[in-house]
Amino acid sequence: MQFNPVTGDVLTKIIEIVGSENVFTEIEHTEQYAHDETEDLVFYPEAVARPNTSGQISDLMRLCNTYKIPVTPRGGGTGLSGGALPVKGGLVISMEKFNSIIDIDERNLQATVEPGVITEVFMNAVAEKGLLYPVDPSSKGSCFIGGNVAHGSGGPRVVKYGTIREYVLNLELVLPDGEIIWTGANTLKNASGYNLTQLMIGSEGTLGIITKIVLKLIPGPSQSLLMLASFPGNEQACAAVSAIFRTGVIPSTLEFMERRAVEWVIEYDHFQFDLKDDAMAFLMIEVDGNDLEVLFAECEKINAVLEENSCSDVLLAETSAQKESIWRMRRTMPLSVKSNSIYKEEDTVVPRSELPKLIHGIKDIGNRFGFESICYGHAGDGNLHVNIIKGAMSDFDWNTKLKQGIREIFELTVALGGTISGEHGIGSVQREYMDIKFSRAHLDIMRGIKSVFDPNGILNPDKIF
Amino acid sequence: MQFNPVTGDVLTKIIEIVGSENVFTEIEHTEQYAHDETEDLVFYPEAVARPNTSGQISDLMRLCNTYKIPVTPRGGGTGLSGGALPVKGGLVISMEKFNSIIDIDERNLQATVEPGVITEVFMNAVAEKGLLYPVDPSSKGSCFIGGNVAHGSGGPRVVKYGTIREYVLNLELVLPDGEIIWTGANTLKNASGYNLTQLMIGSEGTLGIITKIVLKLIPGPSQSLLMLASFPGNEQACAAVSAIFRTGVIPSTLEFMERRAVEWVIEYDHFQFDLKDDAMAFLMIEVDGNDLEVLFAECEKINAVLEENSCSDVLLAETSAQKESIWRMRRTMPLSVKSNSIYKEEDTVVPRSELPKLIHGIKDIGNRFGFESICYGHAGDGNLHVNIIKGAMSDFDWNTKLKQGIREIFELTVALGGTISGEHGIGSVQREYMDIKFSRAHLDIMRGIKSVFDPNGILNPDKIF
Repeated sequence: MQFNPVTGDVLTKIIEIVGSENVFTEIEHTEQYAHDETEDLVFYPEAVARPNTSGQISDLMRLCNTYKIPVTPRGGGTGLSGGALPVKGGLVISMEKFNSIIDIDERNLQATVEPGVITEVFMNAVAEKGLLYPVDPSSKGSCFIGGNVAHGSGGPRVVKYGTIREYVLNLELVLPDGEIIWTGANTLKNASGYNLTQLMIGSEGTLGIITKIVLKLIPGPSQSLLMLASFPGNEQACAAVSAIFRTGVIPSTLEFMERRAVEWVIEYDHFQFDLKDDAMAFLMIEVDGNDLEVLFAECEKINAVLEENSCSDVLLAETSAQKESIWRMRRTMPLSVKSNSIYKEEDTVVPRSELPKLIHGIKDIGNRFGFESICYGHAGDGNLHVNIIKGAMSDFDWNTKLKQGIREIFELTVALGGTISGEHGIGSVQREYMDIKFSRAHLDIMRGIKSVFDPNGILNPDKIF
Repeated sequence: MQFNPVTGDVLTKIIEIVGSENVFTEIEHTEQYAHDETEDLVFYPEAVARPNTSGQISDLMRLCNTYKIPVTPRGGGTGLSGGALPVKGGLVISMEKFNSIIDIDERNLQATVEPGVITEVFMNAVAEKGLLYPVDPSSKGSCFIGGNVAHGSGGPRVVKYGTIREYVLNLELVLPDGEIIWTGANTLKNASGYNLTQLMIGSEGTLGIITKIVLKLIPGPSQSLLMLASFPGNEQACAAVSAIFRTGVIPSTLEFMERRAVEWVIEYDHFQFDLKDDAMAFLMIEVDGNDLEVLFAECEKINAVLEENSCSDVLLAETSAQKESIWRMRRTMPLSVKSNSIYKEEDTVVPRSELPKLIHGIKDIGNRFGFESICYGHAGDGNLHVNIIKGAMSDFDWNTKLKQGIREIFELTVALGGTISGEHGIGSVQREYMDIKFSRAHLDIMRGIKSVFDPNGILNPDKIF
């Protein structure tokens, strides 16, 4: 695609649409829109606009479509695959002013929100009404719900409650030519034509800009119990994961953490934790519901399976302080790893019974390529985040050989029935691995769909493909 | 689109692909492929093929794509919108030989099936292993899982367990040009490119032919309790629906039946039921789980809400015979209505709190146009099946004025935030109402997607659009 720059003329028109106070072109202001939480990437936009209505976005899209100017929509900037970065320059449309919870409809257990609402703000708002919106990625304190939709976000409760895909009922969408449509209906079922709502989820802002979101809510459970189980090794912990489901209990959370991940949290966050010598890996298992007796019985069932599966110790968190402490350990883990080393994070996902083979293979590949990896993640979903640490690897090896190591990790993931991203998306950084999972015919279909929505290719270019 | 007939040359090639014993052209054999469960429609195919491998389907598609012959894939033939009918003639590909349950993977709670497996056969197979596949449309005894995927099927347990959309993980798909792809991965999460799995669900066989399906399973609940609540009127029963959810309990089934629907089952199926004079409408409410005490407590909460909402009587089915009897009444209702009158069934869906307005409006429209309607359905999802009975309506009015009445029902449905089909699909018979719900820009996007998959438009032509 051949794009044009944001000329003075175009800038004047952008200012006419959103007002000069909502347009930035100076580096001191555009800098914060030039990166997200993905390691190493910086791309400056030529201009940033902060619209606050669908109509303004429609006008901006029509303008940029006419002048063939790349447009990159941006949520909270917490992405881990570079999806919100303006790699071709052009205009960033920041959704930060779309921060209104329009309606929480208690009769239908639905809510309508703007895409710039921070996930945790929304969760708290519905919790005040005794309701649950269970999609809480690690970045819930700063990510936007719109970005969560664009990435098909998950988080630690997917294992019981599903990803955001199960909560989005309807989307208001601005198409690249400026047309505004609602993708679905505010109903729990919809068998009327192709499901554009589902197609938008996980499309990473390449097909249209989401301007309103209708979400399903559910009654919140009033009780939960949390167990922390330790194991003599990674593979034993991973093997216990699929065994747990045979109890008939579906945990609300089932997270894996290897020992090194816990050590990093202890070391860098001064976290108080009695790390036993023989605890080489952990499973964090939560059950929730409305009846504490039932939950204790579920924990007993799970405990029996853990004992049959090499578990060396189980801590049942009895107080909310204990629970909170374990959750804090898990929640600070990503930042703890990220802020203390040069790293790359990969987002592998496999059928959960294949986790032992996956983690064995990852460590084996690391040994061959000379990198350390710190693994943790949503084991109940078969979703393992692999943080590759530069450590003693030379700059040369890091910049050249590592790609091959990552390729081998993804080849293993796909060979085990999985795929190259569970919840972080392809964005900019995983594009080069798409050939591992997708045939040419498959990619041609995806590219064709992109062209239907965006024939000039202006919307978030050079992402996914 | 200009199509070509199935000539002798083409027929020879079809026979080469699937064998002469699997090709029908005589009316005595093609008749059963000329209709489904939709009222009044008959379209004969020029030929029927019964392949049994993806490779054969690939060869058939390549052949028909080259010769521009329409292809209509067919499942169990239980559809209610004419989606499986060869309205342009050509070749019907019957999936009846794809009837193998390939694998039930108890470690990952997944199964791989061929699309011609009968839904109930599969449900029973997984139930034997203590697992649940909860997507059970009324036609579960004869419909195919492939057809369920193509229509985004629901059934009476969607309210707690979701539609088939929440259970399909991955699909093997033959594209119109003969290419074979897997749409996703066998994982619970997938953030790798556009979600073609979800796009295929509900696409009514217009984008590709599904040849394998990977499904998510869940642990089955061991206990259930069933209540039948009666109300003095339709609107009171419908108003109680959204109130029930405010108890924090999500029923596993929440069905509405108006008195006339029950009367028809009593009259035509000789069903034994003590129909009280003041029972003008019913809610059938089931809760399920593993702890009977918890379920009794849930029923008490629901009962309290029912009493606050004009409920005149609640029957708690204590024995499995009682439960089975109530379920049988609900399950025979569609056939009871259909086999005893000329009728048309519409599949309305709205946010559930709008149900009272919907049913009030439907009756009002019926009064104005002179038709009787018998309504029942999945009230917990806001999904009401409206059976329009010819009764005393003249043939002339039935054939001319009725369309306007149906149009008004759908206009009301859409005005209430709903859409024109909840689970039956658009197929052939609802196409003329698509303009009520979809703008030109929206339809253009859908048509564009169709062209990406099927540039020659050979696959299930004249459906949806």
